[in-house]
Amino acid sequence: MNKEVTIYDIAKRLNISIATVSRALQDHPVVSKKTKKKITELAAEMGYRSNHFARNLRNAKTNTIGVIVPRLNSYFMSTVIAGIESVANKEGYNLIISQSSESTEKEIASAKTMFNSRVDGLLVSLAYDTNNLSHFDPFLHKNIPLIFFDRVAEVENCSTILIDNQKAAFEATSHLISQGCKRIAHITVASEMNVYADRLAGYQRALTAHQLKFDKKLVLTGNLSPEAGAAAAETILQMKSRPDGVFVANDHAAVGCMLALKKAGVAIPGDIAFAGFNNDPVSTVVEPNLTTINYPGYQMGEVAASNLINHLTGSAVIRSAHTTFLRAELIIRESSEKLGNRK
Amino acid sequence: MNKEVTIYDIAKRLNISIATVSRALQDHPVVSKKTKKKITELAAEMGYRSNHFARNLRNAKTNTIGVIVPRLNSYFMSTVIAGIESVANKEGYNLIISQSSESTEKEIASAKTMFNSRVDGLLVSLAYDTNNLSHFDPFLHKNIPLIFFDRVAEVENCSTILIDNQKAAFEATSHLISQGCKRIAHITVASEMNVYADRLAGYQRALTAHQLKFDKKLVLTGNLSPEAGAAAAETILQMKSRPDGVFVANDHAAVGCMLALKKAGVAIPGDIAFAGFNNDPVSTVVEPNLTTINYPGYQMGEVAASNLINHLTGSAVIRSAHTTFLRAELIIRESSEKLGNRK
Repeated sequence: MNKEVTIYDIAKRLNISIATVSRALQDHPVVSKKTKKKITELAAEMGYRSNHFARNLRNAKTNTIGVIVPRLNSYFMSTVIAGIESVANKEGYNLIISQSSESTEKEIASAKTMFNSRVDGLLVSLAYDTNNLSHFDPFLHKNIPLIFFDRVAEVENCSTILIDNQKAAFEATSHLISQGCKRIAHITVASEMNVYADRLAGYQRALTAHQLKFDKKLVLTGNLSPEAGAAAAETILQMKSRPDGVFVANDHAAVGCMLALKKAGVAIPGDIAFAGFNNDPVSTVVEPNLTTINYPGYQMGEVAASNLINHLTGSAVIRSAHTTFLRAELIIRESSEKLGNRK
Repeated sequence: MNKEVTIYDIAKRLNISIATVSRALQDHPVVSKKTKKKITELAAEMGYRSNHFARNLRNAKTNTIGVIVPRLNSYFMSTVIAGIESVANKEGYNLIISQSSESTEKEIASAKTMFNSRVDGLLVSLAYDTNNLSHFDPFLHKNIPLIFFDRVAEVENCSTILIDNQKAAFEATSHLISQGCKRIAHITVASEMNVYADRLAGYQRALTAHQLKFDKKLVLTGNLSPEAGAAAAETILQMKSRPDGVFVANDHAAVGCMLALKKAGVAIPGDIAFAGFNNDPVSTVVEPNLTTINYPGYQMGEVAASNLINHLTGSAVIRSAHTTFLRAELIIRESSEKLGNRK
């Protein structure tokens, strides 16, 4: 690799002082426009990279926002990122993204990389198993703002953006009950993470509210992939007393489960009604189309980025932790209409 | 934001020389293990960030690989990234990812961010409209290795990894012809980019090889989203002489087109047979299941990351540009089986 170009090299080439080069690159008013132009052009030509050392002496910004997400392989997450990006672009911020692949260990490495890349702020959605959050301490110690979205944790001075997962799950499950389902299974992941704990709680609360018994054996856990959905279908097919409805914590696993059940001759919604979560495009491809919760991912990204940038620019300081809930509504489709009463 | 912790602060706290702190943080053998331990522990406690200025004086690595992709919202791209990540993790590299959102302007900004984040190497898949590549010059000037994958360009000393798009498109189109299709439409994007130009060329070559006339009006362009596929269906429905087969440059647009045609009462494959591209999971959800090209995205990511890291570690220097072709094969499903002769 070549030697890094420094302000010394630029100063030498132009036969001017280092101080002038430094001020010009920081757009200091004391340097004339003409000199600034000459310096910045040569800097670009020589491949000068904005010098973090010098810039940090005056605590300058990098105009970069870091985003750490569990996985990039979902429509939901790519929609959130699109929302973040639309706001960031408008405000002149660049994004760098890193995925934890649902591993706390990788999340720690991602946080480190983001810290060393000197992001101005960080947006985080946590991995399934993260419970210790000390890898975010370096950001907190430096007052680098940190906002959690979707998969959130309670951290002092950090705000969170999410939907009311318990309410959404309550509505989806109650809808299945309203269609005549009396024995409803729940496909989810074994995780303490808020989103899954809350969806499970909403499912249980709906059962209780309608005098249905909660049966632990009907909670089927996996990693919520289409394959995990298919595996849950195998378990359902082997049950002595099969469920007549299934509420799934995401659409991909719901579709995987539906396809496997259909192959085995199970009628949907006749034998088993289905409701998913996210309103992924696949929910309108599968036949019958899948009843689901519309998750406002794009809006979540916009709100997360706006809150962060407003904090960075000082137009709205996040003084204390607060939680923003976005609305998520039930979308009823053929997969759950046992009674044929679609409005 | 707090003031950046420097080696001066660490030296002061421990009452030792700056030189010793600097050497200890660079793991220089002249500093005793005990002193190194004391210094690195205090550095971590104080929130010291590895000093790029000092490190670059000796041209140290950041162990970070940058990845620039057009969009994160496809199964294909998330699979490529998973492949890159599996190799990067194994070799101790972190990834930072940026999307160009199919905009050259954003791609330029992404390249700049990656450059300033001092990535050790860069993996790039280009935006639809990128034709000028000067935004990658800073990397080339610094001998920071650059590898293109999928959407590639010819750049001196840069290697590329792709599939033979023309061959794959030739096979998909020839298969439709073998099923009796005589008037085949092609849904794609109006882009000069290799992948789309090559798929169009393969489609045309198959028509010619089977004495079918190429009709420009049957090439329908959009942005290859499901909505663009639905728009193409509208165009097809209004044609006086409808096609009896459609080869689509990706599965999402194929599915969008199929759903819209089905809604309008068109039988698939009876009236119109379909073949897509990518083998996205949605191709096995849509009914009938979609014939497609299996694109080895995970493998592409692995090969790209391995080539880059081998170059970085010096175990295989990329001295000159070379191209790696990965195999992509046709997967025949119900959407194209007009003759009912599925093997």
